Amino acid sequence: MNKSVVSNLFSRLREKNPLVHHITNIVTVNDCANVTLAIGASPVMANSVEEVEEMVQLANALVLNIGTIQAEIFTAMILAGKVANEKGIPVILDPVGVGATAYRRRIAKELIQKVKISVIRGNASEMYSLIRENGRTRGVDSTDISLDRKILAEKVANLFSCIAVISGETDIVSNGLETVQITNGDHWLTKVTGTGCMTTSLIASFTGTTADYFSASIAGMSVMSLAGERAKKSISEEDGIGHFKAQLMDEIFHMNEEVWGKEVSIIET
Amino acid sequence: MNKSVVSNLFSRLREKNPLVHHITNIVTVNDCANVTLAIGASPVMANSVEEVEEMVQLANALVLNIGTIQAEIFTAMILAGKVANEKGIPVILDPVGVGATAYRRRIAKELIQKVKISVIRGNASEMYSLIRENGRTRGVDSTDISLDRKILAEKVANLFSCIAVISGETDIVSNGLETVQITNGDHWLTKVTGTGCMTTSLIASFTGTTADYFSASIAGMSVMSLAGERAKKSISEEDGIGHFKAQLMDEIFHMNEEVWGKEVSIIET
Amino acid sequence: MNKSVVSNLFSRLREKNPLVHHITNIVTVNDCANVTLAIGASPVMANSVEEVEEMVQLANALVLNIGTIQAEIFTAMILAGKVANEKGIPVILDPVGVGATAYRRRIAKELIQKVKISVIRGNASEMYSLIRENGRTRGVDSTDISLDRKILAEKVANLFSCIAVISGETDIVSNGLETVQITNGDHWLTKVTGTGCMTTSLIASFTGTTADYFSASIAGMSVMSLAGERAKKSISEEDGIGHFKAQLMDEIFHMNEEVWGKEVSIIET
Repeated sequence: MNKSVVSNLFSRLREKNPLVHHITNIVTVNDCANVTLAIGASPVMANSVEEVEEMVQLANALVLNIGTIQAEIFTAMILAGKVANEKGIPVILDPVGVGATAYRRRIAKELIQKVKISVIRGNASEMYSLIRENGRTRGVDSTDISLDRKILAEKVANLFSCIAVISGETDIVSNGLETVQITNGDHWLTKVTGTGCMTTSLIASFTGTTADYFSASIAGMSVMSLAGERAKKSISEEDGIGHFKAQLMDEIFHMNEEVWGKEVSIIET
Repeated sequence: MNKSVVSNLFSRLREKNPLVHHITNIVTVNDCANVTLAIGASPVMANSVEEVEEMVQLANALVLNIGTIQAEIFTAMILAGKVANEKGIPVILDPVGVGATAYRRRIAKELIQKVKISVIRGNASEMYSLIRENGRTRGVDSTDISLDRKILAEKVANLFSCIAVISGETDIVSNGLETVQITNGDHWLTKVTGTGCMTTSLIASFTGTTADYFSASIAGMSVMSLAGERAKKSISEEDGIGHFKAQLMDEIFHMNEEVWGKEVSIIET
Repeated sequence: MNKSVVSNLFSRLREKNPLVHHITNIVTVNDCANVTLAIGASPVMANSVEEVEEMVQLANALVLNIGTIQAEIFTAMILAGKVANEKGIPVILDPVGVGATAYRRRIAKELIQKVKISVIRGNASEMYSLIRENGRTRGVDSTDISLDRKILAEKVANLFSCIAVISGETDIVSNGLETVQITNGDHWLTKVTGTGCMTTSLIASFTGTTADYFSASIAGMSVMSLAGERAKKSISEEDGIGHFKAQLMDEIFHMNEEVWGKEVSIIET
């Protein structure tokens, strides 16, 4: 990890203004669009099987988020993912709630089999569910539930040949060989719905500007955690999640390499 | 109604952190998720026929909200509702706009016939539409449109053997035998979309912690009305619905038994 | 354009409280509902083929927004549009991203062929795409991409016999014979997703109160631009798009003929 490489991505993103095609859920889609704009990229949300292949042709990155997945949306994801692969643009997977149902596990498995994924971002339990489901034949078994989160990230990265991002009190980003921890953040990020999905959109925005998806993932993940930390500090004690969310958007909107360079806390492990 | 029983539900909810499965509309789904988090529960939104039966197995309460109902979502509601009934968790129905179209009336009728509903929350005209449609053979006719809202709540409660919650300037909660009125509130709650849907999510959150659905319904309904009243008082005169909505979320997030106990106004009728 | 005619629409809207039926996208649907309420109208969002024909019977205006169009929603749009035409209520089209894919171009073309549209609101590139696609046989060719925006608005208005509204740094509203420019606005309106969709909802709200769709379109477009300008001025320098969006809603909520009359800047061209 080269901190100045990551730092340079902020201005690069705002210059390039990448188009991020989202096929995502109905719960947080508005927040994902706004956070994509806030960091300097452009969102497009299109999920019809009739147009996703053409839409993704215009895009610099593709987000696949299974938060409210349905059969037809899944078909659209496969179609768009294949075009993204042919075109060589990054595909960012957010396996929302993948452990919750057999359907989500099957969806995620098939997505990973049929589409080359560049980055997967989830929480620890989602990531664990992915390796258990997909990696069984490679010796991952249920005793691994006690996996250290760093090891979990490395396993995901190696198993799927992608960047693995685990959000949590400490965030982990791994490319399989190199792993960093981001210690910024605030507990209130778990009190607002969609901060995970929004992080995925931020990562996708950065991957739309560089082939260095590891640095892009560090940038996207750390922007959310640092913005959350700053937002919590700048609101008053009487404020709750309503004002916190508005402030969070403000912090992302104003984030730049100066603030980030001074306040981000990344540990190489 | 035992006020201290209701009051105790706040800490109970935050300890138990119930999972509330929503099959709901596309308009207010983000707000419903945020309000569920704000009160101390966890939301999950899943509406695919392929997974709702498994998802509801994990849940402590199920919300069925017909705000933007479509045929496939309706099928999912029936599937999920039946599993919720088998599992014995509460099903909370929000019959949004049920009087507006024949399709919604048919949907609501079929839901009530096929799924045992624990709580129905709506405004007076939605509730009236439900009894007119479903209760015709029991002697409810159009002259009843002049029904007193208390009597309307009791009729809904008795006809469907559920808790009936009527939102309005004064809110009514009835179990058929006992009926209370909540006089907190503010007119601005009608100026923000989704405060009704959010109330339903709050009620569902409380029902996920107790078998006393009457008390849970009083808790959920009164939290919204009291939070709206407090939000309106704490914003400035120049503020409008943008800041009111953020403040409303803050008030729900900070609501607890002390504030509630001091400021709620519930009248037994 | 008669400024006092436009000005009078504010009180008229709040008295009549028109019902605006939206068939719209999943990204901005909540914001569209809130902005419709803020200006004094009532939103209803319903997009099932099973009920849109009946729902639109209750409405005073119909919004068709293709932002996340899918085949079944498109079918619902045609059904609803035809009933709106029979009933004589205005249909407002928002051709979101129409230039991006062949599917959207086909959708928009078919909508315009099968449904009489009263107002089309888009940005310049969307409007250009519409005339290129639909007007080829009338001599519009690719050299027209250099079209002056005023001429573009007039062409759209004349080609489709509708009011054309082009949002941008300067907004253009034309009925084909008469064209005005609105010079209010702020660049930050492009930093929040959905301000275009919300403008369409505002226009629809005003068209629900008068047969003078030209004045109604000027009212709706100028409310958004003026509210954006005022919102930007009233937030602090540290604020970002989170607070800007809340303030924007506040400004729309408080907009009235006094403020509008003093601050709106409309130029007849």
